[in-house]
Amino acid sequence: MHFCDEIDFTKEPSFRSPDKTEKENKVLESLDQLFEVLQLKDGDTISFHHHLRNGDFVVNKVMEEIHKRNIKGLTLAISSIFPCHSPLVAYLEDGTILHVITSYMSGPVAEAISEGKLRGKLVMQSHGGRARAIMEDELAIDVAFIAAPASDRKGNLSAVDGNAFCGVLGYAVADSIKAKQVVAITDTLLDKESHTEIPQERVDWIVKIDAIGNPQGIISGTTRITKDPVGLSIANKAVEVMVATGLVKDGLCYQSGAGGVSLAVTKTLGEYMREHHIQGDFASGGVTGDLVEMLHEGLFQRIYDVQCFDLVSAESVKNDESHISMSAEKYASPYRDPCVNGLDFVILGATEVDLNFNVNVTTGHDGYIMGGSGGHQDTAYGAKVSIIVSKLHQSRIPLIVDRVGVITTPGSTVDILVTERGVAINPRRTDLMDALTNAGVEFMTIEELQEIQHGIIGKPSPKQRENKRVIGVSEYRDGQIIDRIYEV
Amino acid sequence: MHFCDEIDFTKEPSFRSPDKTEKENKVLESLDQLFEVLQLKDGDTISFHHHLRNGDFVVNKVMEEIHKRNIKGLTLAISSIFPCHSPLVAYLEDGTILHVITSYMSGPVAEAISEGKLRGKLVMQSHGGRARAIMEDELAIDVAFIAAPASDRKGNLSAVDGNAFCGVLGYAVADSIKAKQVVAITDTLLDKESHTEIPQERVDWIVKIDAIGNPQGIISGTTRITKDPVGLSIANKAVEVMVATGLVKDGLCYQSGAGGVSLAVTKTLGEYMREHHIQGDFASGGVTGDLVEMLHEGLFQRIYDVQCFDLVSAESVKNDESHISMSAEKYASPYRDPCVNGLDFVILGATEVDLNFNVNVTTGHDGYIMGGSGGHQDTAYGAKVSIIVSKLHQSRIPLIVDRVGVITTPGSTVDILVTERGVAINPRRTDLMDALTNAGVEFMTIEELQEIQHGIIGKPSPKQRENKRVIGVSEYRDGQIIDRIYEV
Repeated sequence: MHFCDEIDFTKEPSFRSPDKTEKENKVLESLDQLFEVLQLKDGDTISFHHHLRNGDFVVNKVMEEIHKRNIKGLTLAISSIFPCHSPLVAYLEDGTILHVITSYMSGPVAEAISEGKLRGKLVMQSHGGRARAIMEDELAIDVAFIAAPASDRKGNLSAVDGNAFCGVLGYAVADSIKAKQVVAITDTLLDKESHTEIPQERVDWIVKIDAIGNPQGIISGTTRITKDPVGLSIANKAVEVMVATGLVKDGLCYQSGAGGVSLAVTKTLGEYMREHHIQGDFASGGVTGDLVEMLHEGLFQRIYDVQCFDLVSAESVKNDESHISMSAEKYASPYRDPCVNGLDFVILGATEVDLNFNVNVTTGHDGYIMGGSGGHQDTAYGAKVSIIVSKLHQSRIPLIVDRVGVITTPGSTVDILVTERGVAINPRRTDLMDALTNAGVEFMTIEELQEIQHGIIGKPSPKQRENKRVIGVSEYRDGQIIDRIYEV
Repeated sequence: MHFCDEIDFTKEPSFRSPDKTEKENKVLESLDQLFEVLQLKDGDTISFHHHLRNGDFVVNKVMEEIHKRNIKGLTLAISSIFPCHSPLVAYLEDGTILHVITSYMSGPVAEAISEGKLRGKLVMQSHGGRARAIMEDELAIDVAFIAAPASDRKGNLSAVDGNAFCGVLGYAVADSIKAKQVVAITDTLLDKESHTEIPQERVDWIVKIDAIGNPQGIISGTTRITKDPVGLSIANKAVEVMVATGLVKDGLCYQSGAGGVSLAVTKTLGEYMREHHIQGDFASGGVTGDLVEMLHEGLFQRIYDVQCFDLVSAESVKNDESHISMSAEKYASPYRDPCVNGLDFVILGATEVDLNFNVNVTTGHDGYIMGGSGGHQDTAYGAKVSIIVSKLHQSRIPLIVDRVGVITTPGSTVDILVTERGVAINPRRTDLMDALTNAGVEFMTIEELQEIQHGIIGKPSPKQRENKRVIGVSEYRDGQIIDRIYEV
């Protein structure tokens, strides 16, 4: 029934007069105080964001309080899980946490889940898929806990002030809009609003604690540029391929993943742009200091930043208007033409690629979870040309397999594979084949590249999947289930 | 059922591969093109914001297209209606528009509705109440039309660029978050994102038209300072009362309504602050150039702006970081400690006040609708001291009545009435009586003030209400119905 139809004109209004002396105070002095007012019960869904990455203290502190209160069967909707979150293993085992929904996992929690220690289900989403699921009420959050580097007393949250400043809170924005209750946890209470990213109307409580994280932990494993000569030769080849497409020109829009080879591509691309006086439009993604340097140099006009991978980029968001923070939706939503749709290139990693160009970045060769889509699915779809950069084998572990352990990103959105032994192009992209042929850049089929790989490390025996227990699913950004994840 | 419980591990995933060549283009070249893709049907709810005030072209242009397409029975959820919207009268009469939900109305549409020409129901909400109703899904919007002074091709909306820049889009923010479909209508397409207030992830389509409005129309009737000596004497008395409360000191937070006497209070208060070297914290509300001047002078440190009442303030939002735009929720939501809760004073007008301090700003003495709450309810509740400034009578029409025509703002939130013949204090506020007594400022009961009024213009005969037809309701900000609105 329509809202207006429900209004009964014949009924005498029975109005309860408001008492204006009863005003709210959002600021609480401890997590203990919070749990006195918070509505949280068995079976609820709680969410966290991961901008403090491996330096985060908030998840463990909150989960410890929840565990103390013996609340069980929670769904943990957390944008990523890092090694620092190892205390959660005990909470999987004792049923405090029932289901886990995340976009990336590495470390002890990932291992424990791979070994079957989660009682409920694991759902792996992309960054854009997570925002979609939240905004569509598919993933309904009861309480969102937001690690906020700084907040005023009204709940205007800033990521560029405070001790543990992380630059951006892009992955927490959808949570803040949709969660029934929103808790900001901060170590820095500001007298006045400053650099608000999430405004006060999205926040129910502000809890002041001693420290929300160690800013040094923002830099974690995947975000260091490779020094390996093979990796560097792949990066050089990738840039050669990019140039061959004709898209490396003024107005270029670019993103790379956080892997060491991908970051090397960015550096090499920068050198090419500098040499050829190319001025790009925007670079986006999780952002590193290298990209910030390219912005300052004028190689790009803008950075769109959903997450800072180091402190240089976190500083830059604060001080540079052309370094623009964005929400996960703006970055990567499957709807409403997100930033990823504007990309010319995205450079991504892979642990496995199959003959249909399906990519696995979720599990390792041994089947253990050691990553997840993050923005992999989103950018592969959005970019005009998605390029996977990877060694063809690593310690005799093959890149190209008949069937990837888990499909993270569907092959229909993966365009080019660049390895140290050759380049393969997705047969859908005859336009790219033409461009590379015209530019004199050699390429082959992925079957040919696999043959080369077999020549070096032999043909691996096919892995068994079917008799193993399913522990979770890999979800595509639009909500479709793309693959199952198996127990190790 | 929980999202995770619905996932069936035993079912083989049937994945439909995405085709990355099919990308969106949000930009449409005409309203005609828009209505080819828009989902709009009989009985839907559409919304508009009113930042272009009496200079708005968008509402009429859109409604003309809807009328052409013979769509009927719409609910018009529009934050305010001005004289420029007179073409809507025909659409009330022919049933194109069934229900109207708004926060303020003046001009031909208000008259027509008062005369019973609306087939459905009228709901008058406060600015904060409207945001609440939208965010709570009580007021569910099918299509939000947002007049956007400028947009890039992705839908990042700016109110400070373009020809018809209005400074802020605060009343459209909740609509943009919650509406099923969001249409930005602009006359200025930017090459690059600039000063984004509503981000691209909230926008489905961008329609480029010739002109969205006449920026001169932003200044409308209520926003000119009074020059009348009686009005000015009321303003002086109001400042005397404010000073007597002891709250006019460093850190002062202040708002005034847009009426001529209220604006005179702001000016007089500024003089007092200047003279006594008082530095306020923030001023808020619909903002005028006078307030901007006070900001520049350092009399306030910040302005919180939900709507610009003139072009000086619209310019100021663009150029001054301490002039902060805010959403209707941040401004005035009944939840989550909005800006209004930080106010020391709000200065407001009234057409009628009753002996319980209930205020009517919705209808005139003749029963015709000529206004509405706007932020009246919200600020009266939020401010430590809410002050009504008004002449005791105007052309022999009394201010103080036994029963106001429509209760807009409940008396429990109205603290002081200042007229040219005396000051009355709400009996709930013995603290304010003590303060005024100590400061030697005279006051009386509202009954005494009414007696004075009767002495001047006589005792009016009570108005008939009960045998008239109810055409709508006055809603309180929390969703309660506070009063009925009658046909004239």
